[in-house]
Amino acid sequence: MIYFDNSATTKPYKEVLDSFLKVSAGYFGNPSSLHGIGGQAEKLLGQARSQVARLMGVKAAEVIFTSGGTEGNNLALKGAALANRGRGKHIITTQIEHDSVANAARQLEELGFEVTYLPVNKEGFIDTAAVNAAIRDDTILVSVIHTNNEVGTIQPVGEIGQMLKDFPKVLFHVDYVQGAGKLPLDIYGSNIDLCTISGHKFHGLKGTGALFVRDGVKLLPLLSGGGQEGERRNGTENVAGMVAMAKALRMSSERWERNMGLINEIMGTIKSGLAEMPEIIIHTPAENSAPHILNFSVKGFKAEVFIHALEEKGIYVSTTSACSSRKSRPSKTLLAMGVPDGVAESAIRISLSEENTLAEAKAAAGAIRETVKQLGEVMK
Amino acid sequence: MIYFDNSATTKPYKEVLDSFLKVSAGYFGNPSSLHGIGGQAEKLLGQARSQVARLMGVKAAEVIFTSGGTEGNNLALKGAALANRGRGKHIITTQIEHDSVANAARQLEELGFEVTYLPVNKEGFIDTAAVNAAIRDDTILVSVIHTNNEVGTIQPVGEIGQMLKDFPKVLFHVDYVQGAGKLPLDIYGSNIDLCTISGHKFHGLKGTGALFVRDGVKLLPLLSGGGQEGERRNGTENVAGMVAMAKALRMSSERWERNMGLINEIMGTIKSGLAEMPEIIIHTPAENSAPHILNFSVKGFKAEVFIHALEEKGIYVSTTSACSSRKSRPSKTLLAMGVPDGVAESAIRISLSEENTLAEAKAAAGAIRETVKQLGEVMK
Repeated sequence: MIYFDNSATTKPYKEVLDSFLKVSAGYFGNPSSLHGIGGQAEKLLGQARSQVARLMGVKAAEVIFTSGGTEGNNLALKGAALANRGRGKHIITTQIEHDSVANAARQLEELGFEVTYLPVNKEGFIDTAAVNAAIRDDTILVSVIHTNNEVGTIQPVGEIGQMLKDFPKVLFHVDYVQGAGKLPLDIYGSNIDLCTISGHKFHGLKGTGALFVRDGVKLLPLLSGGGQEGERRNGTENVAGMVAMAKALRMSSERWERNMGLINEIMGTIKSGLAEMPEIIIHTPAENSAPHILNFSVKGFKAEVFIHALEEKGIYVSTTSACSSRKSRPSKTLLAMGVPDGVAESAIRISLSEENTLAEAKAAAGAIRETVKQLGEVMK
Repeated sequence: MIYFDNSATTKPYKEVLDSFLKVSAGYFGNPSSLHGIGGQAEKLLGQARSQVARLMGVKAAEVIFTSGGTEGNNLALKGAALANRGRGKHIITTQIEHDSVANAARQLEELGFEVTYLPVNKEGFIDTAAVNAAIRDDTILVSVIHTNNEVGTIQPVGEIGQMLKDFPKVLFHVDYVQGAGKLPLDIYGSNIDLCTISGHKFHGLKGTGALFVRDGVKLLPLLSGGGQEGERRNGTENVAGMVAMAKALRMSSERWERNMGLINEIMGTIKSGLAEMPEIIIHTPAENSAPHILNFSVKGFKAEVFIHALEEKGIYVSTTSACSSRKSRPSKTLLAMGVPDGVAESAIRISLSEENTLAEAKAAAGAIRETVKQLGEVMK
């Protein structure tokens, strides 16, 4: 089996599962309980928070644990918008956000907010000047995805953050779900106020995530309750899940840093295998894109047909984001880039983890070539 | 160690952890992915949903998976209120709800809703006639806790549900977090529209829960995103956590049913051990209360002091709900019952699981008597 769908989800590291099991069985207390069993759980939770904060380069008190990327993005957008609604009701985001940002923005529109969805250029990048131009007196929040989940473009969040220094009342949220544990991000240096990560994207467990909330930033909690996470995310903490996430983030960060050369070589092998084929159009730009995501179309074939044919050869890739894949709509990122519908419908995403190998890349490139040939013959 | 704080959280069953581990390692796919690895995860998720639905006596399509009780209660209250705000802005709940309901209601007040908080009588029960009397033309939701988490009173939700049949536009939410897996609840027969459960309260894992949403009931999602859970709770599903929760609910339900006689005997042993002591006032009523929760005050002692003294003897109990225990405020349920502040400040909660034994009950009753004596001498 060659698993090339790591942007949908990753396989948890064995060490991560071991930690989860150890904490769940041995430290099962409720961190809010006053007795020692609760205290032990609270201590582990605090250690996990410090570790995540250190890896994100922020203070521990600025890390809120969540149930995942979708919750983090929703808490950032809705929490910030509703808490700051007295100051303004305008939000700026892009046309290439993950559904958890895009649909949170749409819900805020239903609730009376106004949202500007900025376009991208043909390569999938937003323009800092366009963000600047969109800012109004009543703008309260800008939300930009760091690494696009469908094509892998890395947006100029550092530049946008610098520009936003001229607008100190505008909050800046970055969806870092596809970048965390893989690509560095200077959160303070980029003037970021809110930043989302998700555990299962870097070999942690599903149902775990974190949101960086800069000191002093107000959020209306989506989940009200017993006062956990500084009253911004209430509910009994998933202690074992957060310990597991902290470990996954540390391991993933170390391995990506160590293996970046190999990952580039693996991606290079796939790309050069595809470059020889006239049927293939690569959508992921060569520059300023993530090393682990490659989006391309195989002209003339529906993506679903193609990925099932690859699956028969033991290779697992996806059509678009996992969330959107069942809706049978072409990737909105590609459409925003100006890719025609017919081409976007043939789009396939390969997404690597640092556990993939060069041999897998060679096998996959060969299998893709073979599949193009076989399906081409069937269609004749 | 005698762990008598099972209403705060329970120790996960070994079999539950085994299932979690097996699914996380072997079926790690994203259920939304189109390929077979995603399909396997989706199938397991569907099986877990069917099992939870069967145990709750409802249809599988009516079960939404959540990250826990707090999320379920928030989704029920805020989701229903915001989705139905066009029909009215009045909500009825009680003065003895868990913080996740009470604080969700307070947030809705900030957002323009009006909330009636019904009082309870001296024994901690709300009156169905009072719920009836509170209903207005613009009432959209009634939310009542099934088993109170602080004193264990079981509210007449069946009777309230029957009464609400005369008001077909008023939704009925029941917080069943402390009852699920222990006490039967006829959801359809009680005319319930929304019902919350939480995995870690019945030996499942933290970060898992479910909300029953009756066919046709509209909710505004708190977490917008990729379309999971019928677009009412988006985000990559915690497949392993939900499989584990389904198993925990089945095991817990079977064991409680089988061991109810023993649990009653255990609680009876504790109660008769305490009944002989003039310093002790029992707050949990003898009738219509949960078999596993006992709330009592030890006159003259601050609860914190008492529970730490018990902890030194290896017995773990709590002052009030875990969520509230760090706030050093007396139990709001006791205050609502008319218990004076000074007595409420001495309140201790014992909460059993079906894994506790008669020997533990005898030891605990003895330890409580001994602690009263020791602390009494210290204070002389």
